[in-house]
This record gives sequence, C-alpha cells and structure tokens, in this order.
Amino acid sequence: MTSVGIDAIEIHTGKLKLDLAETFAPEMGDDPEKYTKGLGLHASSFPDAYEDIVTMGANAAHRLLERKGLEPADVGRIDVATESAFDNSKPVSTYIAGCLEQVYDGDFHHANKGERKFACIAGTQSLDDAVNWILAGRNRGRGALVIATDTALYARDSSGEATQGAGAVAMWITEDPDIVELSTEQGYGSADETDFLKPNQQFPSVDGKRSMQVYLARMRESLQDFERATGASHPDDYAFIPFHTPFPGMVRKAAVLGYRHMIRGTDIEEELAADIGRQPRRERFDSDDAFEDAISEYVDGLTDTDAYREWYDAAIQPTLSISSQVGNWYTGSVHLARFSALKHAAENGIDLAGKRLLVASYGSGAQAEIHSETVQDGFTEAVAASTIDEQIEQRYDISFAEYEQVHDRHNHEKSVELEPFTQPDAEFVFDGWGPMNERKYTYVE
Amino acid sequence: MTSVGIDAIEIHTGKLKLDLAETFAPEMGDDPEKYTKGLGLHASSFPDAYEDIVTMGANAAHRLLERKGLEPADVGRIDVATESAFDNSKPVSTYIAGCLEQVYDGDFHHANKGERKFACIAGTQSLDDAVNWILAGRNRGRGALVIATDTALYARDSSGEATQGAGAVAMWITEDPDIVELSTEQGYGSADETDFLKPNQQFPSVDGKRSMQVYLARMRESLQDFERATGASHPDDYAFIPFHTPFPGMVRKAAVLGYRHMIRGTDIEEELAADIGRQPRRERFDSDDAFEDAISEYVDGLTDTDAYREWYDAAIQPTLSISSQVGNWYTGSVHLARFSALKHAAENGIDLAGKRLLVASYGSGAQAEIHSETVQDGFTEAVAASTIDEQIEQRYDISFAEYEQVHDRHNHEKSVELEPFTQPDAEFVFDGWGPMNERKYTYVE
Repeated sequence: MTSVGIDAIEIHTGKLKLDLAETFAPEMGDDPEKYTKGLGLHASSFPDAYEDIVTMGANAAHRLLERKGLEPADVGRIDVATESAFDNSKPVSTYIAGCLEQVYDGDFHHANKGERKFACIAGTQSLDDAVNWILAGRNRGRGALVIATDTALYARDSSGEATQGAGAVAMWITEDPDIVELSTEQGYGSADETDFLKPNQQFPSVDGKRSMQVYLARMRESLQDFERATGASHPDDYAFIPFHTPFPGMVRKAAVLGYRHMIRGTDIEEELAADIGRQPRRERFDSDDAFEDAISEYVDGLTDTDAYREWYDAAIQPTLSISSQVGNWYTGSVHLARFSALKHAAENGIDLAGKRLLVASYGSGAQAEIHSETVQDGFTEAVAASTIDEQIEQRYDISFAEYEQVHDRHNHEKSVELEPFTQPDAEFVFDGWGPMNERKYTYVE
Repeated sequence: MTSVGIDAIEIHTGKLKLDLAETFAPEMGDDPEKYTKGLGLHASSFPDAYEDIVTMGANAAHRLLERKGLEPADVGRIDVATESAFDNSKPVSTYIAGCLEQVYDGDFHHANKGERKFACIAGTQSLDDAVNWILAGRNRGRGALVIATDTALYARDSSGEATQGAGAVAMWITEDPDIVELSTEQGYGSADETDFLKPNQQFPSVDGKRSMQVYLARMRESLQDFERATGASHPDDYAFIPFHTPFPGMVRKAAVLGYRHMIRGTDIEEELAADIGRQPRRERFDSDDAFEDAISEYVDGLTDTDAYREWYDAAIQPTLSISSQVGNWYTGSVHLARFSALKHAAENGIDLAGKRLLVASYGSGAQAEIHSETVQDGFTEAVAASTIDEQIEQRYDISFAEYEQVHDRHNHEKSVELEPFTQPDAEFVFDGWGPMNERKYTYVE
C-alpha cells in the first residue's frame, strides 16, 4: 500500500492579538480566569485591515512552496476549506491561485481547485479528498495543497465572542510524506443537528449548550465507528490525540470521554477500580438519569486519578498550546492541534517516528471523524522550520477600541476603512474591490 | 484496476415551468426564436413554493434508494454540490440526510457528509471525490450518494434571466457500476477569472461575453491537458460528448471548438481540405487578429460540412434534449447532458455498452475538467427506469405574473408566502423555519 499523508505544514496567524485576560475581560466585567482557566484561552488572533481568508491562505501556501522548493507544475490540486467564504459561487482556491501566480513564473491552470464547507470539519475532509486522489493513482506525480482558512468572528456581545480567531493552515499532501501517513480506516459520527448555523448570515447562530452536547455525542459515535474498522483502542496506542479545539475547555470534556471509552474493559479500568470503582454499565440502572449521575460521578473520580492526569498531560495538553494563544480557527483548528503536539515532541526530543496520533475532527451541524496517523522520520525537521512562534509573538496587541474597529472592518455588512496596525512585508494583501465586486489582491515586496 | 463509476441516476425537476416562447418572450418584447433558436431553450423549471435545493435533492435521492432497494447502512458518503446554499456553515447534505431519516428505519450517522462549491463544476468534483474514495479502498463496502442540486435564479431583468432553471441530479457511485465507469485520466483547464460571481449575494453578477470566452478557453485547455494524459483524441473515439450546458447555444460553440481540435492532423481534416482548406496554423499569420479571422472563417466552413453536421447530430444534439426543456441547473447540468445522451441511446436501441463518452464539465471562476467514461452493460435498464419525461410533462405552466411571484418566493432577501401551484405527493417538502432560522422539512404521504 502506498504511504500517503502530510509532507509539510505552514501556518499563518492573523497579525492582531486580542488579549482576553488583559483587554477583553475587564470590558466584559469578567474575572480573567473565566477565559484563561474556564475556556483555556489567553488570546485571539484577528486579521489586520489588509488580511482576509485569501491573504492568510495564500501567505501560508507561499511560505510552504518556498520552503519545499516547489513550483506550480508540482501542484495538481488546491483545495480550500472554509466557513468564511465571501462568494456563493467562486471558490477561495481560485483567488489563492491567482495570488500565487503573481509571484511564480508558471501557472496553476492544470490544477484542480475546489472548496469544501462543513463548519470546522471541512479541512479534514479536504485533506481526505487529497489523500484519496493520490491513493486512487490519479495525481500524475503531483501533490495537493490543502488550505484551511477562516476568520472565526461572532456577533458582538454574543456568547461566542471570547472564542474568536483567524488564521490559515496550509498542508502539502504527497506520497512518502515527511510528517504523517494517514490510516485508511476512518470512523464517522454524523447527524442532522441544529447546534450552530449561519443561515444567509456571516456570524453564527449558536445554541452553546446543545453544541457542546453534540460535539461529545458525535465524537463518541465516531470513535465507536473507528473501532468497528480497527478493533478496540487503548490509550497506549496513541502518543497524542489532537482534537478539534473550539476552545481548550471543550477538549478537556472530549478527552475524558475518549479516555473512559478506551479504558473500558482494559487493564487500566481494572487498576483504577480499587480507587473509583468500575465504570457504570447502563444495564445496572433503572433509568437514564440514574445512569448519567453515576457516569458523572465516575468521571469526576477518573479525572482526579494519577493515571488520567499523566495521560492527559502527555497526550492532550501539548495539543492545545497554539490554540490557547490564537483562539478558534474553525477549519484549521484540529490541524493546529496536530501541529502543536508535533512541535512539542520536536522541541522536547520525544522520538515520535513510527508512533501514532489519533486525530479527532469535528464540525457543527454536525459530524465528527476519527482516523489515525503514523508519524514519519522527517517530522522534527519539518516542524522546526515553522515560524509560528515568531508570528504569535509579533502580533500587534489591540486595545478594546481597536478591537471594535477590527470587528467592523471584517463585517461583510459594513464598509469600514481602517488604517492597518502592522506593515505588510513580502506578502499578499487585500487591495480593494474590482468592478464586479470581486476582491483584489497584490503582493507587497 | 477496480471499475468504479455511476451505478444509478435519478433526476428531480422543479415542478413549475416557465415557457420561454409563449410566456417570457412576449413580456420581454422579444422574438421567441431568440430563445428557442438562439439559446436553444424552450422552457425553464422552477421550484414550487414548497420546493428548494434540499427537497429536490432529497426527493431525487429517495427515489434512487427506493429503486435500487438500498438502506441507509449501504450509504457511506453523501456529498452535495451546489452554488445555491442558504447557510455558510451547515452543509445541505445534513438536511438531505435528515429528510431521508424520516422515511427509513436506519440512520446515516456513519456516512461522511459534505458540500462542494465551485460554480457549476462542483457536481463533477463531488463525483470525482466519491470515485477516488472507492478506488482508494476506504469505502468499507459502501457506496456514495452524490447530489447536484441548484436553484439557478438570476436577478429580474438581468441578461441571464432566460437561462434560469431548478432541479437536482442524484447519482449512486459504486464498484462495478451499471451505467458508466470513469477513466483514471482527467484533464484540467483552470484559471482565476472574474466572469461570473456571487459576492455575498444570491443572484450572480455576470460578464456574459467574458463568461463565454472563458468557458471556451478553459475547455480548450482541459482538452489539451486530457490529451497529455491519454494521447490525441479523435471524434470517432466517443459516442457522445456531454458538455456543461448553461444553454444549448453555448454547447454549439464548444462542440465546434472541440471538433476542430480533435480533427487537426487527422484523416478528417485531410478529407475536408478540398472543401474548406486546412486549419489555419498560427505560425503562418502575422498577427493574432489575422489568425483569429482565419479561424472564424474555417469554423464557418467546418460547421457547414456534412462531416461536422453528422457528428454533431450524433454526438452532441442528443445531449441537449433535457436541458432545452428545463434550463440551466448549474451543478446538475452536465449530468443532465450525460443522461440525455444515454436516454437517447436506450430509446433508439443504440448499443452503447463498451463505448465511450467524453464528459466536459465547467464552472465559472473558472475551471473545466474533461474525463472519459465507458458505458456499461446495464445502462439501458438503469436509464429506462427514469421518470424524467413524466416529470417534465407534468410541470405546472406558470403565467408571467405567477413567475414574478415564484421568483420573489425564492429570493432569500424577501419573505414571500405563496400558495403552491401543485400538490405534493409522497415527497419531502419545505415546512418553514425553526427557532435558529433553520429550514425545516417534512415528508408528505
């Protein structure tokens, strides 16, 4: 079987930073720990006045092509995943290719360009399509550029306002990849849910409580479906479990659900039984309520055990480092989680080669997907080349008044001019509208 | 190599009919032949008050599942292609699955649901993804439901108003299919074009002249790219060439371009040389203008030859029969063209099994894709089961005043109630909005 997966990853964060503890919490009259501890978020990234989903995606892709020494002729496919599109017909991938053609001699006329939409899971679906295209032997020796790009803005004063973010993740998909190989097996948990939607509107309508329930229900289903394909999972099978991360607090809930599921009937459940008993089984309870109460109690006990804490600190916590600094990037979020874990391993000399990740994606509406990935020998070098730390560090820290202007600038229903806070440098920038209301872009040296 | 392709096709037309010659032309003060001869269109389909992209897609899919005796457990993937989406996050496929779950005991929780957008080419891209998924061996024995569904409405009094349409095509993708097997080889012609777009708007902004030029330029490129993968094409290689059909007149232009390209340097060019000379070659002309003039003259001569007319009548004309009665269905259009050709062959006892089609898809913005398909033994029976003739015949023929109401009803910026013109019968219908502005659906017995 051909080995196909991710050969390179480049990340572009929006260049502005909203500090949740220092800037947002005081204006909301909130304890900063509501954000830093409760949600697990310290800051959100926002796009500067000249940034949008096209520039962020194109800049990530450009850096990736440059670093890998690739030319347009090497690229057979450009797929963009987003839920922040500004056109109902023309895909973002055409704009991104148009940007890249400004700086390369060749063109991308031979490349299949596409766009996928399904809330936050479309990035993983696009990755999947690219992998299938290569496995199907239809790539004519070329690789695929998969770009997850979003400006995750919520209406002002809505409950999601603390979990905003903006950025892009570009991935290069090839045979014999340097970073991870994807498993053939996948698990799905997918249902028609009304938890989060954007009916003809830019900012989402969210049922926050329902959304968290649906995330967990679909995730459980997808893990069960994955196990139907692979057999039972065990926590020791996976070095890291990157989850879709709307905010790290959500992942804390998903992690304990996953752990509880994976240890059921294993040596770990047995060892913990002396302290916290065995997991409640539905058939021993008279009602769903009684069963749910017993589960809650078991989970409270489980999260306090050394076994769980050690597992969480090793397999989950390292996946959250970037998200906690940049917020929710929607389609890019789970790919930031994978990258955070790999970066942690590379920086701490953890030898991951040959080890596996369990990657757990999610999109509201709603669908979860789980597959495994095998880390490749080249991962350390591939990850070390990233500039994400510097990008995060160099963001311009906006005041609350500036945040209000930035939010208005990126509101599609307003036409707000705004002086940029940062200076573009060797990158693509948004350059106004053309005669058919098309967005225009230029490369600034 | 595994044989993968289309095993079943079901079509659902919007239940209303706008007669272009009888109803539209008089109101516009136009000669009816402007539509019937110039565009090649006799009527457009429109959705009744209780129809939309979800009901049309779900009704086509339901009929397909019923006819094939399929259950939800057989379906591993539901991909919808549309450029008429009403939500920027939640995909249409979740709504369609929700509809289908109302009438089946099982559910589609195990099925990967998605949505693709790239003007009219996304239907073919979704078909492609489904084929790749099976070729890659990731389908766990299941098939894929690919649904192209659109309400192709233009702003009132805009130049596209005569080329509207509404309907859905559902396709069932499997190994060892009954209808066609897809080629591994594909050709692409793709560029960042501003010919047709919908920047945060439901109805398109169109540069009509540019759009036709771009269609032809991208189509030429994709044929050249296809030939790089397969070697030179010859008209005799293909029984039919279904094109994306915004209106049949566009296909007339594309067909002669394709024919001219394919006969270059062949026996056919040689035989025609006595009558119309050989094809102009760029190197023999001093300027692009002089070359273009010579091409125009050659094309005029070519379209008058018996050889061309016989080829067009055999390979192209039969692909246009449904489109000429229903208008442009955007993502479904090229799939209607394929179906029209197969239906023509089945009805006229043409033995197509083992013969090939050249399928030429297009989406503004812009991209063309060309691949070939090999017709399978079961095609006659599969095509004969279609009810499309009855559906077209039974449409309610709306007056111009009724057309104005229907257009308003389906305008996302208006909230217009409208009494239906037809009676739903054993089908899914739109049933109003829920508390989060979600569209709701019910099955009417």
